[in-house]
Amino acid sequence: MKTENIFQKELRLVESLIKKDFVKEKTISELYGHVFKSKGKKIRAKLNLVSSSQNKKIKQNNRIKLAAIIELLHTATLVHDDVVDNSPTRRGVKSVNNIWTNAHGVLIGDYIYSKAFIYMVDIGNKKILKELSNATNDISQGELIQLDAMNNLKITLNKLKKISYYKTGRLFEASAKTGALLINANNMYVKNISNYAKNLGILFQIKDDLLDYSIQAEIGKPVFQDLREGKVTYPFFYAYKNSNSNQKRELEKMIGNIKLNQKNAINLITNLGGIEETKNLAKKYFNNSINSAEKIRNLKIREEMIELAKIAINREK
Amino acid sequence: MKTENIFQKELRLVESLIKKDFVKEKTISELYGHVFKSKGKKIRAKLNLVSSSQNKKIKQNNRIKLAAIIELLHTATLVHDDVVDNSPTRRGVKSVNNIWTNAHGVLIGDYIYSKAFIYMVDIGNKKILKELSNATNDISQGELIQLDAMNNLKITLNKLKKISYYKTGRLFEASAKTGALLINANNMYVKNISNYAKNLGILFQIKDDLLDYSIQAEIGKPVFQDLREGKVTYPFFYAYKNSNSNQKRELEKMIGNIKLNQKNAINLITNLGGIEETKNLAKKYFNNSINSAEKIRNLKIREEMIELAKIAINREK
Repeated sequence: MKTENIFQKELRLVESLIKKDFVKEKTISELYGHVFKSKGKKIRAKLNLVSSSQNKKIKQNNRIKLAAIIELLHTATLVHDDVVDNSPTRRGVKSVNNIWTNAHGVLIGDYIYSKAFIYMVDIGNKKILKELSNATNDISQGELIQLDAMNNLKITLNKLKKISYYKTGRLFEASAKTGALLINANNMYVKNISNYAKNLGILFQIKDDLLDYSIQAEIGKPVFQDLREGKVTYPFFYAYKNSNSNQKRELEKMIGNIKLNQKNAINLITNLGGIEETKNLAKKYFNNSINSAEKIRNLKIREEMIELAKIAINREK
Repeated sequence: MKTENIFQKELRLVESLIKKDFVKEKTISELYGHVFKSKGKKIRAKLNLVSSSQNKKIKQNNRIKLAAIIELLHTATLVHDDVVDNSPTRRGVKSVNNIWTNAHGVLIGDYIYSKAFIYMVDIGNKKILKELSNATNDISQGELIQLDAMNNLKITLNKLKKISYYKTGRLFEASAKTGALLINANNMYVKNISNYAKNLGILFQIKDDLLDYSIQAEIGKPVFQDLREGKVTYPFFYAYKNSNSNQKRELEKMIGNIKLNQKNAINLITNLGGIEETKNLAKKYFNNSINSAEKIRNLKIREEMIELAKIAINREK
């Protein structure tokens, strides 16, 4: 596909722009280099680029810079997340807190955040600044609320949905919205593409939660981590909701148990409908995102968006 | 003094604005409440208020909001610092990472940072946005460079000065500068008050380093912490520079030693001129700040600034 090539090319420009950051201090440039060494999927940056692709009159410089901002913000949250979760790896590479220390993770995260704000100020679009500062605040709220979900068997479905939205959906939404704002798109386009992206992001998070309950080890990261860490996500939530008191007691033994028997866990949670109901929920957000995508008039953008949603729901890692 | 009263009153308005933040989520409001429970000196916010007091036509709302932003940024760095340094207390109160966890400290810090950016966007002054996003980035650089100073006996005086400037002087400078930018002050005023504040901030940091080498326990925080943690600061730097090889060996045994003998340490470092030379350095930055302050035409502001510098150099805690 030709459009695919255009965006792939633009994503490489985003990468170059990010890597161009230069600080004389050795430790800072080493840390920064390490963080951006492994190439993520850059799905948020792509969403942003597609969203801002409708208007050819906009300077490409600013489009690339905005996509870089999105990628920087996302990366900063990942680096801080690794400190928060005490994760040894990220994208198959050792985390900053693993190679260096928590202190380095906190500070290089702050460095990357503020770098993103510097670029935002360069672009100088007040609506974009507003959306991204709000989104950043919401993301931290999502992460904080998630801490309350640790070992919390009384968590509600609404709270889990709020976590998925704030933690993940919010930046997807902001990625698409700011792309549309950059090109001064009409309100209808802004609304449709933001709604699409919000639902896509939540779908992404639900799939992430589901993939953590995969038995195959091919997803590039350790599985059953959520359960072992005591993080209540959708599969466990539904299983627990559907369980009788004996099963509840079994599930309670599993949550936060680092010596977990994976087979027993997946069997019980599957039998109690935890996987099935989570899949249905994912389907619901997939449908929501498709509904919004179909309202987008620009054919190329609409097709890109629908394609992205299909990839999201079908991904196996 | 009448002016003193005006700024004290305004600082209370800053406090109220910060505390007005309302989030339904219990954990977030508890964390936020805890962080802002203990009242700091708010010296940066005051610097900002004094700096923006020259022009009466500026809406007070925006002046208070800008001072609140400064205080939020400062507090966010403190919260992250406590995670970075693993500090159990802050301003005599238990730190977030002590009562809750490192994860809470990282995330509520991010929450406060992004709150500050939301307010900045409200004010909507591009020069202020630029100065504060740059300052935030520089602060994180200062902290990162400081990590390199751990147990580093080869650190240079220039590097120590860079740390003091980036870590502390930079936000002082930005506090005064953005106050001046808010009231559209002339370039001369912006330059003088920024220079004054930069030197004041560095002076503050040098005094902080000195106070950590106090024998009296009245400064409200544990002393000899830098030395125990292995953090090379000015007193140790100068002492080490002036020492012979036997004394070097003794000093090397002290740095990073949690079972440190305080009396021996202070005696050796004093005898080697570590305290004296640091005091001279503080004096130098005091003089720099006074020189800049004296160029400020507005009498009331000039006097406030000179007063503040005197407090900074004379403070005993």
